[in-house]
Amino acid sequence: MAPPLRALVNGRGDGALLALDRGLHFGDGVFETIRCMAGQPCWWPLHWQRLQLGAGRLALPLPAQQQLVAEVTELARMAERCLVKLILTRGPALARGYAPTGDETGTRIALCYEWPPAPPPMFRVRTAQLTLGENPALAGIKHLNRLEQVLAQRELAVADCEELLLCASSGAVICGSMSNVFLGFEDALVTPDLEQCGVAGVMRALVLQACAALQLPLRIATVTPALLVGAASLFVTNVRLGLQTAHSVDGRALRVDPRIASLQRWIDAHAF
Amino acid sequence: MAPPLRALVNGRGDGALLALDRGLHFGDGVFETIRCMAGQPCWWPLHWQRLQLGAGRLALPLPAQQQLVAEVTELARMAERCLVKLILTRGPALARGYAPTGDETGTRIALCYEWPPAPPPMFRVRTAQLTLGENPALAGIKHLNRLEQVLAQRELAVADCEELLLCASSGAVICGSMSNVFLGFEDALVTPDLEQCGVAGVMRALVLQACAALQLPLRIATVTPALLVGAASLFVTNVRLGLQTAHSVDGRALRVDPRIASLQRWIDAHAF
Repeated sequence: MAPPLRALVNGRGDGALLALDRGLHFGDGVFETIRCMAGQPCWWPLHWQRLQLGAGRLALPLPAQQQLVAEVTELARMAERCLVKLILTRGPALARGYAPTGDETGTRIALCYEWPPAPPPMFRVRTAQLTLGENPALAGIKHLNRLEQVLAQRELAVADCEELLLCASSGAVICGSMSNVFLGFEDALVTPDLEQCGVAGVMRALVLQACAALQLPLRIATVTPALLVGAASLFVTNVRLGLQTAHSVDGRALRVDPRIASLQRWIDAHAF
Repeated sequence: MAPPLRALVNGRGDGALLALDRGLHFGDGVFETIRCMAGQPCWWPLHWQRLQLGAGRLALPLPAQQQLVAEVTELARMAERCLVKLILTRGPALARGYAPTGDETGTRIALCYEWPPAPPPMFRVRTAQLTLGENPALAGIKHLNRLEQVLAQRELAVADCEELLLCASSGAVICGSMSNVFLGFEDALVTPDLEQCGVAGVMRALVLQACAALQLPLRIATVTPALLVGAASLFVTNVRLGLQTAHSVDGRALRVDPRIASLQRWIDAHAF
């Protein structure tokens, strides 16, 4: 049991919010999980960019960037290395029912968590039974409707592996239960297209940037199960794990991708 | 702006909950909207049945039925006719991340709202642009991941109609933005199959029961857009509206289904 080190709700430290909040009623909001080191958020511009994308898509009110940075930085001081979760909802409902009135003022919640333990040395990946619904209106953004990920984690808890790969209802491989995924081939890296479902992670965006900077070929493509079977290597990404090598997928041994080390170096060098 | 008449969180009247609640973080919970009349919840056994279905599917802790009935009844006394919304979440997170620990204790929230104004006399229905993602693991239950409905209501707000019909990503007509749907044909009523997406509403269940009791033929089927075009009548259902006649669909005039009156009578006679 690891409760957060500290919680702020609209800048106040009492950690309580209204039972009327649309974040609770409908998952009407977005969030970010931010790596913080030496008292500063890492890769903040990409988190802010995704918050803007999500707020634009859902027509959510968005606080000033300066205010968010100030609160995240205040929490980042709690530990040399920690995770700050930022939740932005549409705020308390002004009327009954799904429809927003357009006059909502938003709720911002910032929680600081201890840095989690490192994953085990052998990191095995398997394809999940659970599939993901497809909705281009919600694809890519990190909104608060995350029951699919909760169910995937329940499946993972009894699976003989460290991460599950999730396919869309139409069959394409999309992402991990809490990560994005990259397949390694001789000529290029391949990562799934996220136009129909999945979250476009900040670490995924950093790998794309690093590939461009280092002139490593990368394709964003529909990843069929057949393509997965042909991959020589695989790694999953999120801001906590960075680039995490998978040592096997569905029981098939994989090699360590030779591109990982240079990508990780480039990304770490661009944290602030 | 219509705030609730009263709110209870875990039986207490202060209306505040913890920012750690998994209902907020992930939409990890279920809800019911209950019609209350003369101080009593209507059709309670069907609401309880769906709560059990949802809690089973998500492995949520469920309070004792007696406790829920007591709280709903306490709120139902606020007005001769009102709506009580009951939200049951997995409760405050005991650890960071999507995975539940299994030791969560649950949060229960009960909100009493004024009875809403009646719909306008002409009730027009149109097919929405927005489509619904398909996930059999979440289909049928009334969980808290409701961003699709929020987006549908935003589309409805600028559409020239009173309700939108939503299709699944695979093309089948599933439901309204806040209702279930029935198509009327000469020989039978038809309502969409909800195995892949959609909420199986309490009023939908009552129409199925009433059809059986009154020996009116009814089919649960995949509703293609072509089938919709052939329907002579259409009505939408929820516990607030009951059986609401649609006077047109996508601009095509519809007749009033002759079966509605007897179905509505049977359902009203079985409220308690």
